[in-house]
Amino acid sequence: MLATEMGTFSVNNLSNPLVAELIADATRLRIGLLTLANGCQVVDGGIDYPGGLEAGRRISEICLGGLGNVGLTACGPVSGWPTSVQVHSSDPVLACLGCQYAGWNLSHKWEEGAFQALGSGPGRCLAQKEPLFAELGYQDQAESTCLVLEVDTIPPVALVDRIAADCGVRADRLTLILTPTGSLAGCVQIVARVLEVAMHKAHELGFPLSDIIDGSGSAPLPPPAPDFLTAMGRTNDAILLAGQVQLFVRGDDQAARQLARDLPSSASRDYGRPFAEVFKAYNYDFFQIDPMLFSPARVVVSVLDSGHSFSSGSLDLKLLESSFGVAL
Amino acid sequence: MLATEMGTFSVNNLSNPLVAELIADATRLRIGLLTLANGCQVVDGGIDYPGGLEAGRRISEICLGGLGNVGLTACGPVSGWPTSVQVHSSDPVLACLGCQYAGWNLSHKWEEGAFQALGSGPGRCLAQKEPLFAELGYQDQAESTCLVLEVDTIPPVALVDRIAADCGVRADRLTLILTPTGSLAGCVQIVARVLEVAMHKAHELGFPLSDIIDGSGSAPLPPPAPDFLTAMGRTNDAILLAGQVQLFVRGDDQAARQLARDLPSSASRDYGRPFAEVFKAYNYDFFQIDPMLFSPARVVVSVLDSGHSFSSGSLDLKLLESSFGVAL
Amino acid sequence: MLATEMGTFSVNNLSNPLVAELIADATRLRIGLLTLANGCQVVDGGIDYPGGLEAGRRISEICLGGLGNVGLTACGPVSGWPTSVQVHSSDPVLACLGCQYAGWNLSHKWEEGAFQALGSGPGRCLAQKEPLFAELGYQDQAESTCLVLEVDTIPPVALVDRIAADCGVRADRLTLILTPTGSLAGCVQIVARVLEVAMHKAHELGFPLSDIIDGSGSAPLPPPAPDFLTAMGRTNDAILLAGQVQLFVRGDDQAARQLARDLPSSASRDYGRPFAEVFKAYNYDFFQIDPMLFSPARVVVSVLDSGHSFSSGSLDLKLLESSFGVAL
Repeated sequence: MLATEMGTFSVNNLSNPLVAELIADATRLRIGLLTLANGCQVVDGGIDYPGGLEAGRRISEICLGGLGNVGLTACGPVSGWPTSVQVHSSDPVLACLGCQYAGWNLSHKWEEGAFQALGSGPGRCLAQKEPLFAELGYQDQAESTCLVLEVDTIPPVALVDRIAADCGVRADRLTLILTPTGSLAGCVQIVARVLEVAMHKAHELGFPLSDIIDGSGSAPLPPPAPDFLTAMGRTNDAILLAGQVQLFVRGDDQAARQLARDLPSSASRDYGRPFAEVFKAYNYDFFQIDPMLFSPARVVVSVLDSGHSFSSGSLDLKLLESSFGVAL
Repeated sequence: MLATEMGTFSVNNLSNPLVAELIADATRLRIGLLTLANGCQVVDGGIDYPGGLEAGRRISEICLGGLGNVGLTACGPVSGWPTSVQVHSSDPVLACLGCQYAGWNLSHKWEEGAFQALGSGPGRCLAQKEPLFAELGYQDQAESTCLVLEVDTIPPVALVDRIAADCGVRADRLTLILTPTGSLAGCVQIVARVLEVAMHKAHELGFPLSDIIDGSGSAPLPPPAPDFLTAMGRTNDAILLAGQVQLFVRGDDQAARQLARDLPSSASRDYGRPFAEVFKAYNYDFFQIDPMLFSPARVVVSVLDSGHSFSSGSLDLKLLESSFGVAL
Repeated sequence: MLATEMGTFSVNNLSNPLVAELIADATRLRIGLLTLANGCQVVDGGIDYPGGLEAGRRISEICLGGLGNVGLTACGPVSGWPTSVQVHSSDPVLACLGCQYAGWNLSHKWEEGAFQALGSGPGRCLAQKEPLFAELGYQDQAESTCLVLEVDTIPPVALVDRIAADCGVRADRLTLILTPTGSLAGCVQIVARVLEVAMHKAHELGFPLSDIIDGSGSAPLPPPAPDFLTAMGRTNDAILLAGQVQLFVRGDDQAARQLARDLPSSASRDYGRPFAEVFKAYNYDFFQIDPMLFSPARVVVSVLDSGHSFSSGSLDLKLLESSFGVAL
């Protein structure tokens, strides 16, 4: 009996065809295409073009490095709410933390001003700029790549040149997808992070990433809002107040029980108010907010080694109504 | 920075591959294939062949001109009901009103009798026979096309010749898909109109179509019924009593609030009885029924410009039970 | 008017491409690939490799002979439970009974021991070893095939040679997919049998298979358990206590009413305890258990000829909680 040698796989080669399809379908997805002076392809997912939920759904799957499925569903954690997002990844550590997490700090200052964004998507696995990648032990190689930026302005070319160089690709092989927080596509791609925020907090809590084998999540799609504060508030609240995640983990029950207890947003000292209020209370200083707040409302942690499951947290529909501004 | 010139797209070229797949899979979808004397391909979706839910699901996506996703789901608006239909379109105006709406009046009289049908599907965007197309401002060009007819007899060849001529295609490049109201495929493709009826009523109410950016909907699948009256009653009731739709619109709150208030079926004077009873009460004269009755039970209208949402209407499960003839 | 001659189709030719994709994506699905001495390809879906839910989802669709869709969904019959499985087949008789049913008795004894498994999947339609195939009236022909075995050891080569010979394929054209009961992929592929157990019991009850036209089902995904007894108990309980199925049938109301009454698990004398307890009470002798126990908790039978539906059974969430070992 021979075990076939297992090759590795490239999250960029998996997601590049999805990027090509997004671009090919740009007109009917009502997203814009721009080419920068250096050849970089920019996708306008909701700045000067309306975009839409389907564009957001596809951008979310690109963000996951082609390793996950994102679906719009008529039923979700909030009974009666008409549109929800569900996400599953066959490799949540690499898909959510290696690709989807908005962890690459992209800032650029010049005479006239400054550009600031957090890069997410499979390009991060090429650039390896974050300490997290040492832990993940995954390095990708590809000739084309893509990043998703939650911004409403075009990045300066000098920054784009640097991103391409950091990824080791030519600028005309780099695609930047821009999805403002308050756009339809932006809403979907943020809420599709419901599993990612659980993964990220698990990591912050010291739970070994190599023990997380599988996972799924869902959350209601919030109504998009034109002002940044409301939009950011609602997309966070969709996850914090009504997101639901199941993780399938290895290891002992003690670690899993502890993880389940600490993982829900309600375990944070900042839980209990709509997110926009919390943000305002900290004078809009994101880094003052308890990082433990960023997680789903309810989690189930199922341990493969023991067969035991631990659940905690619950949905707060009253608070969600006040955030969404509509009866649920 | 260069904006790539945005091309248009063809709903027929998008949906023709779906038609080809439907035909290629005819045997395993248990639908029939017939070729008329003029070469027109007829798909029997439930007359002499049983067809099925999956055939109906695919026919629904063809009907949407390839611009939408239709899914069968184990959970829908009615908790505990085993089979529901959910629909989303990235371009609901063109998909639902330009393609899916059964608005093309196809009638033919000859010595022996008369054939009467309402044509739906992407062929309508070629023929442009309805005043609506002036408003939509969309004209398609394609060499092959498809229409869906909710009938249980084969259309006469003379009518088919006329349809082909109106669409500007050769008769052997025209596919007609026939789905009787009481067939499995027919049930699915009618209930998949839950979003379309909301779009159509919004238009009737004078809401600007260009302000509707995105939308999703769902409704329970009714049990198919062999007699036309019961079948038509149930498919309508599935939408009127338990359909749920969310629209994402532009414009001011006033117009959206008004839309939300008027959109649900309960805003009609004919609401409150199973549809078959309403139809009977008007002596089976469809055109006597209040057109405002045809809409989902519950709607959420989310305004992109303000971030406000307006919801109204509610499900009537008691009436639905009496229509479906089974405990929900 | 010419009716196109309807060909037959091959469940093996439909599912072979799905097998090829599963193998091509093995690394990212974290399943193992082994080649036996006789060239047979073995897929390790959860023995020495972790596998996962997506692997299980795909294996389930292979098991259905490419005639069904299996989806992971964030909402299912049990409100609030984060992960469920839904299944629909356009041809439930051939997909579920001809392919998915684990009906091929594969046992092999040799000096050192014995191997015992029940083969499921499209290979059964080639081998035709079970009396059921005379009733189904379907015989497939193909050069490659696949079977799914719910085991945690590699089958002996002598047995694999026999399987290949019985299927009429070369051993190097045979793929065996192994999914232990307690693995993630195993859990999914067992729970994806919710429709199949209903079909199988309908057959046992004497309901004519040719009268079953369409069907759908769903059930919550149980937490995987490492010990066989718990894992088997939970996967059965997911279906018996919370599975939901709708069948669309032909024939008279009398037969359908009777079917609906007898079909739910609660119609069995052994209903009322977690499955593992029932199994233990019969001294782990599977064949002592009332075969009528194996069916979904709730069914709706919809009769196409009359338009009437009959529903019976109900979910038992209290018992399910005790089986799953977690608050639902």
